[in-house]
Amino acid sequence: MTEESDPLSRLRALSQTGAFNSWLGLEVVAATPGEIELRLRWRPEFAQYNGFVHASIVGGLIDTACGFAAFSMSGAVMASQFSVRCLRPAVADVFVVKGRVVKPGRRQIFAAAELFGLGAPESLFAVGDSILIPLA
Amino acid sequence: MTEESDPLSRLRALSQTGAFNSWLGLEVVAATPGEIELRLRWRPEFAQYNGFVHASIVGGLIDTACGFAAFSMSGAVMASQFSVRCLRPAVADVFVVKGRVVKPGRRQIFAAAELFGLGAPESLFAVGDSILIPLA
Amino acid sequence: MTEESDPLSRLRALSQTGAFNSWLGLEVVAATPGEIELRLRWRPEFAQYNGFVHASIVGGLIDTACGFAAFSMSGAVMASQFSVRCLRPAVADVFVVKGRVVKPGRRQIFAAAELFGLGAPESLFAVGDSILIPLA
Amino acid sequence: MTEESDPLSRLRALSQTGAFNSWLGLEVVAATPGEIELRLRWRPEFAQYNGFVHASIVGGLIDTACGFAAFSMSGAVMASQFSVRCLRPAVADVFVVKGRVVKPGRRQIFAAAELFGLGAPESLFAVGDSILIPLA
Repeated sequence: MTEESDPLSRLRALSQTGAFNSWLGLEVVAATPGEIELRLRWRPEFAQYNGFVHASIVGGLIDTACGFAAFSMSGAVMASQFSVRCLRPAVADVFVVKGRVVKPGRRQIFAAAELFGLGAPESLFAVGDSILIPLA
Repeated sequence: MTEESDPLSRLRALSQTGAFNSWLGLEVVAATPGEIELRLRWRPEFAQYNGFVHASIVGGLIDTACGFAAFSMSGAVMASQFSVRCLRPAVADVFVVKGRVVKPGRRQIFAAAELFGLGAPESLFAVGDSILIPLA
Repeated sequence: MTEESDPLSRLRALSQTGAFNSWLGLEVVAATPGEIELRLRWRPEFAQYNGFVHASIVGGLIDTACGFAAFSMSGAVMASQFSVRCLRPAVADVFVVKGRVVKPGRRQIFAAAELFGLGAPESLFAVGDSILIPLA
Repeated sequence: MTEESDPLSRLRALSQTGAFNSWLGLEVVAATPGEIELRLRWRPEFAQYNGFVHASIVGGLIDTACGFAAFSMSGAVMASQFSVRCLRPAVADVFVVKGRVVKPGRRQIFAAAELFGLGAPESLFAVGDSILIPLA
């Protein structure tokens, strides 16, 4: 893999370098500069008390989708803040999270993400946003 | 355990009922109505690319501390939203997160949380807040 | 005006009942259940130090657009929280802010809004969101 | 006034240069590097429909207090984002808003603020936070 790799290859490589993401089993299914899509297959370890997916996972998917969207345009970034609105209990066999850059910048990148179940994009589980600082 | 149990016993019982929290190994070390403290010992599985703790874990600790603080006053709750400000890279042998209720209410509870390393409360890793809806 | 009035008439009437909105000169230009559009003509009194529109006005437009979108579906509401991302300095002769309900609900309504200059929707000044509690 | 002026003098001068702040009548009552206090006397023009102070004013006070706290440490700044939690209806003869820097930095400054009525700091109307970018 080279510096010139496409965003999808670079994000797949990036995603495999973190121990938490490996445990999670997160899959990068699409990436163009500024827009990415991740999928995660449900596992019982993700559950909180009520059987829904734990807020850590929801927040992590939103944050990761925002960070990966920023990375796909600008390379390595660091999150300043992220916010998650929990619209509905998140229950699905496969979770889909789409991230996109809302406004790129040299000093900060604004990104947003949406989480839903595979095949049901109209029924959002959560939406969120993040501000990321380019490290380069 | 009875309804009349103290907040610490009730939160410890609650914390053990979720598969994700069991995997995490989160420990409830203090709880009074409206204020709680959690600890988490570092494990390599929590790492992201750079060796710092993954944002999923940071967000999950902030969200859980807010939710547990609300639970300690009001019983079962559901998060509407949570926000995390990432002040510094989070690196510690033991993470401490303190949650407190900022404003209780019948229809919504405002809570806030602070994350730092054991023994270094002056050097915050992250702060955040959450709005929770009582379920009772 | 009756209870059965359309959302546009009801929002125009609502908007005129507040002293601050009257001072502001906010105009409701479109409203269907769950989606509204407001306009505000620039006046020098809105300026902050640098001549850009003051963050109070930016935040107020985002908050009002979210609240009016929620009102257009659910009647009287109260904001729990609102967040504003400031993407670019806001400079325009006429500001447009569009609000929409992301997820309605009996206990809480999630709404979002976008602020831009008239004729330039692709160049967002600010985006934001709010959680609103129905009062009825 | 010189570059070496104390934070209080510099903030008072800054506050008078903006048309919106002049209209508002905001008073800077205390400032040390990283902590400031503002006051605002109620006027009927600040009201929304229900007679409470308009969310624009609440958001503007929170945002201004965060920005002034950052300015008191770092000079000119620009807000990236701000968030406001509306804890209680804001009704007072004199509003007090205290802002403080939570974490200073070269690339971004994290600040927080609390709004209450004069003489009643225990009964918060709103709390909020902001991320600010130093312009120097």
